[in-house]
Amino acid sequence: MTTQSTGILYLLPVSLGECDLTRVLPKYNFEIINSLSYFIAENAKDCRAFLKQCSYPEISRAELSLINQHSNKDELLSYLQPLLKGENIGLMSDAGCPGIADPGADVIKLAHQKGIKVVPLVGPSSIVLSIMASGFNGQNFAFVGYLPIEKIEKAKRIKELEQLCVKNKQAQFFIETPYRNGSVFEELLKTLQPTTQLLVATHITLDDESIEVKPISAWKKISPPNFSKKPTVFGIYF
Amino acid sequence: MTTQSTGILYLLPVSLGECDLTRVLPKYNFEIINSLSYFIAENAKDCRAFLKQCSYPEISRAELSLINQHSNKDELLSYLQPLLKGENIGLMSDAGCPGIADPGADVIKLAHQKGIKVVPLVGPSSIVLSIMASGFNGQNFAFVGYLPIEKIEKAKRIKELEQLCVKNKQAQFFIETPYRNGSVFEELLKTLQPTTQLLVATHITLDDESIEVKPISAWKKISPPNFSKKPTVFGIYF
Repeated sequence: MTTQSTGILYLLPVSLGECDLTRVLPKYNFEIINSLSYFIAENAKDCRAFLKQCSYPEISRAELSLINQHSNKDELLSYLQPLLKGENIGLMSDAGCPGIADPGADVIKLAHQKGIKVVPLVGPSSIVLSIMASGFNGQNFAFVGYLPIEKIEKAKRIKELEQLCVKNKQAQFFIETPYRNGSVFEELLKTLQPTTQLLVATHITLDDESIEVKPISAWKKISPPNFSKKPTVFGIYF
Repeated sequence: MTTQSTGILYLLPVSLGECDLTRVLPKYNFEIINSLSYFIAENAKDCRAFLKQCSYPEISRAELSLINQHSNKDELLSYLQPLLKGENIGLMSDAGCPGIADPGADVIKLAHQKGIKVVPLVGPSSIVLSIMASGFNGQNFAFVGYLPIEKIEKAKRIKELEQLCVKNKQAQFFIETPYRNGSVFEELLKTLQPTTQLLVATHITLDDESIEVKPISAWKKISPPNFSKKPTVFGIYF
């Protein structure tokens, strides 16, 4: 049980690219952000730019701790110290929601182990918005992260995910490093059944947002989407 | 491809219970909601109450179409007619995000088939906020809906989900009809390994929000959570 004297670890979503923050974050988030003195983030420059956009009062006085996928447990534990002294901390992702496809999950895990209260705030997640917009099975879906890079392994994994869709009636979503979007898309067209539905969701919540769902047979008849290194979520279902 | 003359199907999240909407919805959502004349929702009374809370100008003039899990394709197609005439429509869930664990997915699917632009707006989803707050594997997770009601089937499914956690390194999330939360919780304690981590997230975003993650062995040592018919998300990981 959380004792009253420990602080709260707030999970602070950030925008998915350059946009007016009032498009993607509730007013409450700004109130919480501006009440905090301690932040855990992936990148100091991005974190300060975000705080500035939130009209954070004195950015130079914000205490930032930086994490990445190599941060070890001792380091993360030291970042949580202010919580044990009753201070609240805001955990931010690089883009989107902390704890979803980002290294924040390790911090959250430790917080639970220490009995610290974790409060997630509402915000944009390209994965979640893609799941909503897909029209696939909202009662059963999986996000499986990245596909293997190697071509044969990638094709094998795509087949496996297609089988999971059919066998478990579970829609499958995944992402790719943006410069590889084109090659993943090609592999999907080559590997999937003509009737399998493919979602391609690009630059979600940004001005050039594009969300398209079509069977593979229809995707094959048109020019491929203009990925040009834009963050993209892929999803498949039957 | 979407032609310029068709409208947009906006996916409008709603709050997860009684709360100040500025806690969970961005300002942009209110702008969109107040610009719409057509809505698709599960319940007319809830929909109108929500519009009122959004300061929607003339609620009596809002055109509502109602859906449930038995709505057939022809009915849903007729609801989409205004889109084909260039009008925008807002699709709402009962609680949370349309398309996630609600009947809205069928409407969205049809919209894609008709080449209609689908735009998901940011808002609260108890499932997504639970995934964020779990600290489990944010790179690989599944939401699998409801567990079987029958006791032996339920235990079997719980075992199966625990095995998926370990085998695929995939965190598993599920929900239950609120009055069954207590019996699912009991079955989880009975069936899962002592070291398996269990998330219990209740009344997310509401004033009595509670999010706890503990190994089964620790849950067994304390009194069960006070579910009292509160909507709850469960999650497991190792």
